[in-house]
Amino acid sequence: MKLLTFELKEQERIGIQEDTNVYDLGKLVDLYNEATNQNVSLVNNLDELVVNNDKTLPVINKVWKWAKDNADTVTGAVYRYEDVKVLNPVSRPGKVVCVGNNYMDHCIEQNVEPPKQPMIFSKWASCLTAPGEAIELPEESEQVDYEAELAVVIGKKGRNIPEEDAMDHVFGYTIINDVSARDVQFADVQWVRGKSYDTFAPLGPVIVTKEDIEDPHHLDIKLDLNGERLQDSNTKHLIFNIPFIISYLSKGFTFEPGDIIATGTPHGVGVFRNPQLFLKSGDTCKIEIENIGVLENPVR
Amino acid sequence: MKLLTFELKEQERIGIQEDTNVYDLGKLVDLYNEATNQNVSLVNNLDELVVNNDKTLPVINKVWKWAKDNADTVTGAVYRYEDVKVLNPVSRPGKVVCVGNNYMDHCIEQNVEPPKQPMIFSKWASCLTAPGEAIELPEESEQVDYEAELAVVIGKKGRNIPEEDAMDHVFGYTIINDVSARDVQFADVQWVRGKSYDTFAPLGPVIVTKEDIEDPHHLDIKLDLNGERLQDSNTKHLIFNIPFIISYLSKGFTFEPGDIIATGTPHGVGVFRNPQLFLKSGDTCKIEIENIGVLENPVR
Repeated sequence: MKLLTFELKEQERIGIQEDTNVYDLGKLVDLYNEATNQNVSLVNNLDELVVNNDKTLPVINKVWKWAKDNADTVTGAVYRYEDVKVLNPVSRPGKVVCVGNNYMDHCIEQNVEPPKQPMIFSKWASCLTAPGEAIELPEESEQVDYEAELAVVIGKKGRNIPEEDAMDHVFGYTIINDVSARDVQFADVQWVRGKSYDTFAPLGPVIVTKEDIEDPHHLDIKLDLNGERLQDSNTKHLIFNIPFIISYLSKGFTFEPGDIIATGTPHGVGVFRNPQLFLKSGDTCKIEIENIGVLENPVR
Repeated sequence: MKLLTFELKEQERIGIQEDTNVYDLGKLVDLYNEATNQNVSLVNNLDELVVNNDKTLPVINKVWKWAKDNADTVTGAVYRYEDVKVLNPVSRPGKVVCVGNNYMDHCIEQNVEPPKQPMIFSKWASCLTAPGEAIELPEESEQVDYEAELAVVIGKKGRNIPEEDAMDHVFGYTIINDVSARDVQFADVQWVRGKSYDTFAPLGPVIVTKEDIEDPHHLDIKLDLNGERLQDSNTKHLIFNIPFIISYLSKGFTFEPGDIIATGTPHGVGVFRNPQLFLKSGDTCKIEIENIGVLENPVR
């Protein structure tokens, strides 16, 4: 299931994307209650849905199955994907955990040894931004760069999670653009400030629940800048895979539902190109990950 | 006003501390409504109070003034501070922003140049812990250290905040122990993981609203380990003061109500002592900041 947040008449709604359609989940629930004489209730937003997914997801699955069986009844709850304004799926994750240098080809382009253990840093959640919204170039930086990444959304609380249980803690997957002000990032040494300017984490467009991704370690990942392909890889090239990252990080700290892990970017980022290439106003940055979708943002 | 979170019959309550007493704010509101035939409502917890303080604080001030004028009416809402279980005042800040090397004497003990601009890193909010709760030593580290710090709680959203307006964005002050696994912190290079093990951010015991701290840059700050004074300084020795930090950081990123800034630790941390000194099971770590209170945590 592809879950998203979209705006309808200035209200935030939870949606389910299917092909070129978006179903308004709140409306589906109302129609379901009416038709089946039940009284199920829905959370207010996708943040709450993820945090409480152990309770909410079974209900949604039931309503969604009913909606598919009663297509004629739910036509008033269907919009065309291209007509709706898609927002960032979640906006209040407890933490955004980022893994650096996690593709072999990205290590080679930097001329660094591949890390012996995951290289961890963070972004503040206040920089999350919606598909279609502008990546804003801050005055303090002359070197704003893009990074296409597969993001994991945690669905179950846990600490000291064994690798073999790690996938039980995954809710689903989305796309994140780990936008980075290279000059600030490297001058600061600690990366968080240069990675956390407002709008520096486009996220979305959808969270695909894990059941719909057969193998998260076999997805094409691509980034186009103004139509030119600059990153082109596959998540099979991840150095540390998702179960390892979850298990490793959960030694000593607790993962909570809603936490996001950005799994690292493949080769092709701007700062390590020759000549270097940075985002400029008027650019369009488009990331596509197989089976998830397209995350496109203008630059301003 | 000294605001805190405490536990009463397994429920989280908002309290106001005055001298040796804690007033249950929810009960005060009930008594106020009853006595004055009004219907004011209270938020569920201190996180929400801080996030919505523009609306909640005027109401609380009114109720608190009424309670002080009607001491006989509110006796059932009063507990002795030493009898209540104090929790961490807030638990879901949007971000925990930390300033490193921000006391001159702490730079000298490390033999590093004082920074030319604030040195910024982060802790994940999942490591916040309550006064009295144990700091748990993770298996991965042999070098867990303490850091006494004044914490600023943000009360008003803002970006590009001029220094002269910065104090308008402060809600109040509390104490944070920026516990740090030195071996992990330095081996990782990026500090966030070694700084964010569960329980690595004791916080509290109260948030003092800014009106009650005449000058946050003139507060004694002390840390005792097992009764021995190991840090002893004053916030007048901060290299970058609070308005500067807020203004500096808000260039390009948005502060939100509830965000926490840990302003840095003075000299005397364990890793730079000769011989080095690290926390061990059975220790007690006690921080006192003038006009705020005492934050004491055992080590396990």
